[in-house]
Amino acid sequence: MTIAATSFVEELQRHRLLAETGEPGIYGRSAEFEDTLLRLDGLIASIGAVDKPEVLRFPPLIPRAQFETSGYLKSFPQLVGAVHAFAGDGRAHRAVLQAVEERRDWSAGFPPADVVLTPAACYPVYPAVSGTVPTEGRLVDVMSYCYRHEPSDDPARMQMFRMHEHVRIGAPDTVTRWREAWLRRAHDLMSRLALDARSELASDPFFGRGGKLLAINQRDQGLKVEIVAPIASDDAPTAVASLNYHQDHFGEAFGIRLADGSPAHTGCVGFGLERIVLALYRAHGFDRSKWPSSVSGALQL
Amino acid sequence: MTIAATSFVEELQRHRLLAETGEPGIYGRSAEFEDTLLRLDGLIASIGAVDKPEVLRFPPLIPRAQFETSGYLKSFPQLVGAVHAFAGDGRAHRAVLQAVEERRDWSAGFPPADVVLTPAACYPVYPAVSGTVPTEGRLVDVMSYCYRHEPSDDPARMQMFRMHEHVRIGAPDTVTRWREAWLRRAHDLMSRLALDARSELASDPFFGRGGKLLAINQRDQGLKVEIVAPIASDDAPTAVASLNYHQDHFGEAFGIRLADGSPAHTGCVGFGLERIVLALYRAHGFDRSKWPSSVSGALQL
Repeated sequence: MTIAATSFVEELQRHRLLAETGEPGIYGRSAEFEDTLLRLDGLIASIGAVDKPEVLRFPPLIPRAQFETSGYLKSFPQLVGAVHAFAGDGRAHRAVLQAVEERRDWSAGFPPADVVLTPAACYPVYPAVSGTVPTEGRLVDVMSYCYRHEPSDDPARMQMFRMHEHVRIGAPDTVTRWREAWLRRAHDLMSRLALDARSELASDPFFGRGGKLLAINQRDQGLKVEIVAPIASDDAPTAVASLNYHQDHFGEAFGIRLADGSPAHTGCVGFGLERIVLALYRAHGFDRSKWPSSVSGALQL
Repeated sequence: MTIAATSFVEELQRHRLLAETGEPGIYGRSAEFEDTLLRLDGLIASIGAVDKPEVLRFPPLIPRAQFETSGYLKSFPQLVGAVHAFAGDGRAHRAVLQAVEERRDWSAGFPPADVVLTPAACYPVYPAVSGTVPTEGRLVDVMSYCYRHEPSDDPARMQMFRMHEHVRIGAPDTVTRWREAWLRRAHDLMSRLALDARSELASDPFFGRGGKLLAINQRDQGLKVEIVAPIASDDAPTAVASLNYHQDHFGEAFGIRLADGSPAHTGCVGFGLERIVLALYRAHGFDRSKWPSSVSGALQL
């Protein structure tokens, strides 16, 4: 069964779970939606807690210089949200207000600030672990709002949404074995949540003509696996989690090294919190008190 | 006693509560810091819950058109964070990458996007309650990350931080009486947290030459009251909460009306969550397990 994304978002609003703001992909969340999301967040943290990760929480901004170093601008310029701030005097201020009054672009007085919106929760981690990692590697648990410039009426494609990630840094086989373990954990989580999920090889939305080749290469090497589940459609389920192996990309970029001096490898598993919550309402209905007891048990509802 | 802001932030890092990112005012939070903050957040929500507010949670972005309507650009252009996004083809992309390579400004390809960072947690509320409010008014509980462009080494002046706000919308005396009640509640909260706090008349950091007059006017009319407590200094304590009466400013701007058609009045009480957490570590020490039992009781530590 396929229901239109627009009718699903209407249902979500009618049940007072999401509220439109006038900007596509920016929604207010109700108390219940937020409560469901935070319980899910806690569940995902607890699954990873057995490995005793370092827990870090960052605001959804990263320093511009680190953003440049990360390579994100190379691959996904179309998704970036760069922050600009006012740098002017009273005269420049009057020009800004005049432009607002006349409904013109008022950005002339706003050069780039030193921060960019976080595109994925794990991005602040790599600069933070720069240097030589211990033999057993490192493990970090992060959760953050993330920004993607893709205004859309599909509630599963928000401009700003939360992602809970576990990040592994270490030797290549440390990272790949860890990702295997998380693939099992992620499937187990989906079955505890009674979601009709499956995993599939995937690729990132690389920009431009050269992007197609990068995507094919990524898929061929099995670097990205997504867990998909129905949100607006059974036929075209949506990614609710992804497991990524970056090889030495971030190790090279941020000088993260193994004991032998070679660049560390990294991987991450990221759960899209809003998407999983949407999948739960889609699968189990808008009356949360009637969700299957296994699901309410897992979320401690 | 005055300790330099820089030595306080060094202490916070030594005790692994905050981690620097390389950008002033953008910090990573440790598991314990975050846990303390979320418990405080829950305590502030529970104090307001007796009034049965509507609970709404927004991501830290607001639509640009609403931001323009709010009047924030008029008063505080220096604090704004506007989001810019890429709008170009492969050639424009290559120009961006060339600029990054040569360490030049790469913003040419990034015109303004339709969103601006939220400057205070209550800003998304006013457009959301546009229209005629019921006789008893409305009451909304919000919490959000907020952005202020004021890079600083003072840990109490972060670029991005969380604010928990209760917002009142209604007739003038409804709002002013509600603010009186919250002033008592805020003092009660500070004494439960064993913080050496006091309230004082205050004003906002209005921009420019005309700003001084606005600030004097605001203070004379008693529109802003701040609760201050020591963070880096006993002599110059920092605002940790503020209680604001906006008169009909937002009612006029966003078409929020009383039953008789006149613009609704609004007020808000905002708690700076990171600042209160910092004040707690400052007052009670870096070993949370040794905080006074009244404080750990209030926070359910």
